[in-house]
Amino acid sequence: MGLLESTIREISVLDEAARRQARARLDQLVMPHWALGRLMDTAELLAAMTGTARPSVARKTVVVMAGDHGVTAEGVSKYPAEVTPQMVHGFVAGHAGINVLAGIAGARVVVVDMGVAGDLSAPVRAGKVISKRLGPGTANIARGPAMDRATAVRGLEAGIEIARDLADSTDLFGAGDMGIGNTTPSSAIVAVLCEAKPEDVTGRGTGIDKQAWERKVQVVRRALEVNKPDARDPVDVLAKVGGFEIAGLAGLMLGAAARRKPVLVDGFISTAGALVAQVLCPLSVAYLLAAHRSVEPGHRAALERLGKQPLLDLNLRLGEGTGAALAMPLVEASVRVLTEMATFEEAAVSGAKS
Amino acid sequence: MGLLESTIREISVLDEAARRQARARLDQLVMPHWALGRLMDTAELLAAMTGTARPSVARKTVVVMAGDHGVTAEGVSKYPAEVTPQMVHGFVAGHAGINVLAGIAGARVVVVDMGVAGDLSAPVRAGKVISKRLGPGTANIARGPAMDRATAVRGLEAGIEIARDLADSTDLFGAGDMGIGNTTPSSAIVAVLCEAKPEDVTGRGTGIDKQAWERKVQVVRRALEVNKPDARDPVDVLAKVGGFEIAGLAGLMLGAAARRKPVLVDGFISTAGALVAQVLCPLSVAYLLAAHRSVEPGHRAALERLGKQPLLDLNLRLGEGTGAALAMPLVEASVRVLTEMATFEEAAVSGAKS
Repeated sequence: MGLLESTIREISVLDEAARRQARARLDQLVMPHWALGRLMDTAELLAAMTGTARPSVARKTVVVMAGDHGVTAEGVSKYPAEVTPQMVHGFVAGHAGINVLAGIAGARVVVVDMGVAGDLSAPVRAGKVISKRLGPGTANIARGPAMDRATAVRGLEAGIEIARDLADSTDLFGAGDMGIGNTTPSSAIVAVLCEAKPEDVTGRGTGIDKQAWERKVQVVRRALEVNKPDARDPVDVLAKVGGFEIAGLAGLMLGAAARRKPVLVDGFISTAGALVAQVLCPLSVAYLLAAHRSVEPGHRAALERLGKQPLLDLNLRLGEGTGAALAMPLVEASVRVLTEMATFEEAAVSGAKS
Repeated sequence: MGLLESTIREISVLDEAARRQARARLDQLVMPHWALGRLMDTAELLAAMTGTARPSVARKTVVVMAGDHGVTAEGVSKYPAEVTPQMVHGFVAGHAGINVLAGIAGARVVVVDMGVAGDLSAPVRAGKVISKRLGPGTANIARGPAMDRATAVRGLEAGIEIARDLADSTDLFGAGDMGIGNTTPSSAIVAVLCEAKPEDVTGRGTGIDKQAWERKVQVVRRALEVNKPDARDPVDVLAKVGGFEIAGLAGLMLGAAARRKPVLVDGFISTAGALVAQVLCPLSVAYLLAAHRSVEPGHRAALERLGKQPLLDLNLRLGEGTGAALAMPLVEASVRVLTEMATFEEAAVSGAKS
């Protein structure tokens, strides 16, 4: 049995006893009942995910999976593919959006080369980037499959390995992406797995104009026609219209779920990865939290399919795990409300009138 | 000229030059244009408020204004009035919701006794609570004015003094409240200043049932009928149907605006205070940020009147400044994106294809 199958078998249901214990304490905290709303919902969930009524999210890790996309040859992005490795160098240098936002959250940033079209050997040698390279970018999905099936499985397993290696030093994961062109495969995945029309789940990505958007919709449509991905077979979908970093993200989520580690899913690309994880193992979704609702129109459909309500809605569309990092203080707040606030009794405050 | 008038005269328009300078840098940051959405809108605003293209919000202060309400005699709250001083003791002890959330934000908590029905002399002597006491709670607004006009002005000026005293050590204020019964005067203020029906802007407060809610709507209606507050005269509104802590909050916002210090407005009660500040000095609103949208139905109308879109929407209804504290990391993120992220040129990343 391969790592993918064994990991899926390890994923179990949430711990309802821990959830009840957490709820019992939340019910007694010194405030009007459930007055911190979604923070308290989240605290209860964190208890159920981690299997303890006193969870901690002190150690936070944002994993940024990077990969390139052959479909950029179709003119679907406003930026050239060379930006992917350039941005990876920026993450290493520490001056990108994710570095700033992870700093505020107190999270470390782990960058993974899942298959970038550029030379990252120097930062890999320096231990600044983890290499799980599947190749120098995927093939053009408008003309054929992104990768073969074995490569898709290897990508999923690489993500699982990352989760496994980081789990002992991580209480809360953030899942982020970098890859010029990757809203196109994400739209294709969402179209297949949410049974949506390409035009309804394809957006402006990095900011293309209407004409380029129409071309992009055609490219998504063609990718589906040429490849005929099978919605019941998530590895087939990933191989035919996915991406290396999307495979890594799906694997990361499965690996984290197997270790009962919560994952804050960032934006559209990460959520496409979550949809793949969902079909591979429906139980894995219970370990995911949606960080924010992105500007991308397909994100809404994908979040609905996952059954997740995002914590933030701030018109973000950057990726890199920035939305996940931004939501981390909210998750930390939820857990610390549960573990640090006094109850009415502890605080010697009068309860509600009966 | 009194402190209130002189403060209002000091409040000036936003600094458009600083805003333009900030926007010029935000436009060049190494990401798709404006891809961090509302964080960037907020960063630009912070520059305009503070008058510098490199603002800092490193020093954060949540001011919690506490006061009691004679209208609790009408059975409008689920909790007895004694909870107000008990909660103030909890803020001092450090185990309330605001202590936990301010801790995550890296904010200090300043508690002000604007007029609590209880003995706070010990924490005041210990320097843990600032006393600006206007009395042992307001009179019952269902039967007459909450306070006289001179007391309302003293309350506003007390808030201004707090802002003035803290301004030199504060980059970002949070405005919060504590006062059993204070959603009732807040609903009355919102009904007057937003020209809304009492039933549309009165909510469940700490969690009353439908019958108690109907009684509360009647109480708000009666408070307006008995007192006939004049919507064009905000001091009249405050004196007749307001509260001591609401006066303090409105004053705090005016005082902060006079010093070009941004204020994160917490929930329904703080926003009622903001409406009073708005009528006293429309320019003051430019220095306010709405932290979150509360569960209270009147909050929506009040935010619309202020022209503010909240940063968070998490079903909060606690008060204490908790929503403001929760939004502080987002404001910090916005400012640090502006000041710490590299531009395309600095990062040597290729720009968009032309």
